[in-house]
Amino acid sequence: MTDPLPRLVDHEQRRRQITDAVRRVIVSGGMGAVTFQTVAAEAGFSVRLVQYYFGTKHEFLLATHRSVMEDAGARFLRQWNALGSDATPREAIRAVLIELLPLDDQRHEETLVLGAFGWANLTGQGINAEETFVAPRAVVTLVTDQLRRAQLPDESSSADHALDAALVVAATGGIAQGMLQGFSTAESATELIDHLLDRVLGPESKH
Amino acid sequence: MTDPLPRLVDHEQRRRQITDAVRRVIVSGGMGAVTFQTVAAEAGFSVRLVQYYFGTKHEFLLATHRSVMEDAGARFLRQWNALGSDATPREAIRAVLIELLPLDDQRHEETLVLGAFGWANLTGQGINAEETFVAPRAVVTLVTDQLRRAQLPDESSSADHALDAALVVAATGGIAQGMLQGFSTAESATELIDHLLDRVLGPESKH
Repeated sequence: MTDPLPRLVDHEQRRRQITDAVRRVIVSGGMGAVTFQTVAAEAGFSVRLVQYYFGTKHEFLLATHRSVMEDAGARFLRQWNALGSDATPREAIRAVLIELLPLDDQRHEETLVLGAFGWANLTGQGINAEETFVAPRAVVTLVTDQLRRAQLPDESSSADHALDAALVVAATGGIAQGMLQGFSTAESATELIDHLLDRVLGPESKH
Repeated sequence: MTDPLPRLVDHEQRRRQITDAVRRVIVSGGMGAVTFQTVAAEAGFSVRLVQYYFGTKHEFLLATHRSVMEDAGARFLRQWNALGSDATPREAIRAVLIELLPLDDQRHEETLVLGAFGWANLTGQGINAEETFVAPRAVVTLVTDQLRRAQLPDESSSADHALDAALVVAATGGIAQGMLQGFSTAESATELIDHLLDRVLGPESKH
């Protein structure tokens, strides 16, 4: 805004402003409230400008969903970089799961938006179901890899890692939803994540 | 309908017809679609008749929520009776958790309706959040009692039973949601429940 020189429009920034507006419309009114009109009004743009960037509602919903996944993925990477290369598998998994809890405004918004996409699947609104499975599948893969790395010397079967990872991700989803709805506090949700890791990886002292 | 004698209106049945209509309206249109008009139309009653039984929208929503909990509770009891008094704690817990998965039309509807109540909490629609916590709290208590009964001789602490039960219920919620949205099949959701019990109670052969 203080830039003294005229410059090209930053298209990536415009797209982001629109998908951010989509998120806010979903948070305040649910998926049913999302239209070109409400999104344009929320972004402070004309409907025509939104249409310039996204030809259909499906396109901006898809871009919004992807932006949430990218934000979460970028946070995973920051957390992993902060942990360093000598992080234990448990620490690496915990860092990912904690990023999936609605522990601050950003993650609260993400949990609500992803939940709204999930519900929209059921009524055929939103994007198609397969698209919404990309994120949980990616997390299951991350967790599976870490569980494999944590494998104890006396473990013989490797088939259980994928099953454990699916359980960990499903349980984290349930814990996040419980916290979102006020059934759990931030503290008890975090305690449940640690207990989940105890039950899957064994008590912390062993690793 | 084949009753040859005139009889008094069965008020309990009428109330049930109305709360069943509320469920169907929620399933087809979400919580936002629920009004006296849509519920009356779905039940095939006049708005005035619905108002005779329920003075406010809050009242019929509350009655609908309770009817879902009562149906699930009645199924738990039937399952427990079928298991008999020599059921292991694991069998008793499993029977309850399986009833919480959307494995048939009835449970699919219940999962959707309870989910819609949960989401409605977030926007201040629906009933108040505390009311929606009654059901999960009751399940946590049931599971805690069974885990206590399953306590191994070498376990010293009893504090973990409540934490394990909270984890089991949160995880089951996540598994049920995943199945509802098509991320898991009935088979993989059931497998996750069994794996959850393995991780909390130890592998089945030990119990």
